[in-house]
Amino acid sequence: MPKYSMIVEYIGTNYSGSQVQPDAVTIQSELNKAICTLDKSIKKTIFSGRTDAGVHSKGQVVHFETCEPIVASRFLNSINGILPNDISVSKIEEVDERFHAQLSAKYRRYQYKIVNRNQRSVWDGHSLLVREPLDLKRMNESLSYLIGEHDFSSFKSMKGTNPAKDCIVYKAECTKEGDIIIFEIVANRFLYNMVRTIVGTLLMIEHEKLKPEAMKEILEAKDRTKAGPTISPDGLTLVEVGYEEFPAMTLN
Amino acid sequence: MPKYSMIVEYIGTNYSGSQVQPDAVTIQSELNKAICTLDKSIKKTIFSGRTDAGVHSKGQVVHFETCEPIVASRFLNSINGILPNDISVSKIEEVDERFHAQLSAKYRRYQYKIVNRNQRSVWDGHSLLVREPLDLKRMNESLSYLIGEHDFSSFKSMKGTNPAKDCIVYKAECTKEGDIIIFEIVANRFLYNMVRTIVGTLLMIEHEKLKPEAMKEILEAKDRTKAGPTISPDGLTLVEVGYEEFPAMTLN
Repeated sequence: MPKYSMIVEYIGTNYSGSQVQPDAVTIQSELNKAICTLDKSIKKTIFSGRTDAGVHSKGQVVHFETCEPIVASRFLNSINGILPNDISVSKIEEVDERFHAQLSAKYRRYQYKIVNRNQRSVWDGHSLLVREPLDLKRMNESLSYLIGEHDFSSFKSMKGTNPAKDCIVYKAECTKEGDIIIFEIVANRFLYNMVRTIVGTLLMIEHEKLKPEAMKEILEAKDRTKAGPTISPDGLTLVEVGYEEFPAMTLN
Repeated sequence: MPKYSMIVEYIGTNYSGSQVQPDAVTIQSELNKAICTLDKSIKKTIFSGRTDAGVHSKGQVVHFETCEPIVASRFLNSINGILPNDISVSKIEEVDERFHAQLSAKYRRYQYKIVNRNQRSVWDGHSLLVREPLDLKRMNESLSYLIGEHDFSSFKSMKGTNPAKDCIVYKAECTKEGDIIIFEIVANRFLYNMVRTIVGTLLMIEHEKLKPEAMKEILEAKDRTKAGPTISPDGLTLVEVGYEEFPAMTLN
């Protein structure tokens, strides 16, 4: 059967996460509805991974199979005409039958947007407002302890049920432009709530003026109660899912 | 009486324009309500000018007088706590008693955001999607005919009642970054719907493959029926109101 992958973008604010759930409107339920209108032979969609309620996407990858080949460009136009305004598809292409949106993925890249100024603005977009001045150098020092393969139990939701806690973090870094701080993290996989808890811990370390080494101690404790809060999903966006190995030179 | 000016930002989507009107929710009505909660001695607010329904702001200037001096920083915090999410104030400062938000203004700067690609994206923000490829060089040639002092009757709404039709345009230019085109126009004043009609005319010239000189002919006709449509307000933002002369070197 012909197989296609697509890049799905969304503003997650009005959805109960990406994955289909009974009695909830999710990204996948809306996507499936739109796809079904176009081609009834499509039985299911496979996402690269779940995103929590309220989390956004610029790069979610979804694959599906059809009975007959489709014209990707026409399908793209049609689906963007049907989907709600807060979901769009930026690309559709045919893929090899061995491709699997979740299992073939080598890494995921997330960004969290922090606005670091005294006043809110209607132009801040999806972000977290932090009024106290943040020290980028200290933050990046804290984050450096996360790089590499570790057990991330300290940063997972109590609700997560997957017993595997090891992740390889390839990159964890903040950059600043004006009063906007972008936290970017790339890993082979993420535990439930992991990015939001890492950002919450990073801000806790700054807020309580702990040493950057506190991040190392929290990581090594493998104890969720040592970490900071799971912060608002509104600043978080899945920006890319990679299907090639993450460039090794970035793993420092 | 002490006098203050503030910079008011808003997403205009949910408002019937900036100016107070009976039986309509406007930027000014919401602002007045918030201000009155903080200081009952403030009798009125004066805007630098009106913005149409659905038009946004990053730089609307508003002045008001109080009976007693206020602490600007505290007032700023308080008002942002009261205003709806789609209105914010970025700055408040005391001004000379001769300052007048509208009458002292030397120029207004507007931007219109055009997304020039085949597909919509949830990340386009407040903009107009134009699917056919646009030629930046031709567009800027068309716009060059607007620079200087002219009668802009061709670009005013039939509804406008102000008999004065002359405006001095200091700048009218498009810049492109990726697939985002920003049209920027600076003038001493604007007629009702003028910016949106200029953009509509610019796109009409491109769409119908007219010569860029068509803009000159339309301007000189002083006839609204010769110009293009008044385009959607959603791409339009008032970005600055200037109280110094616009730098002359830009007037080419």
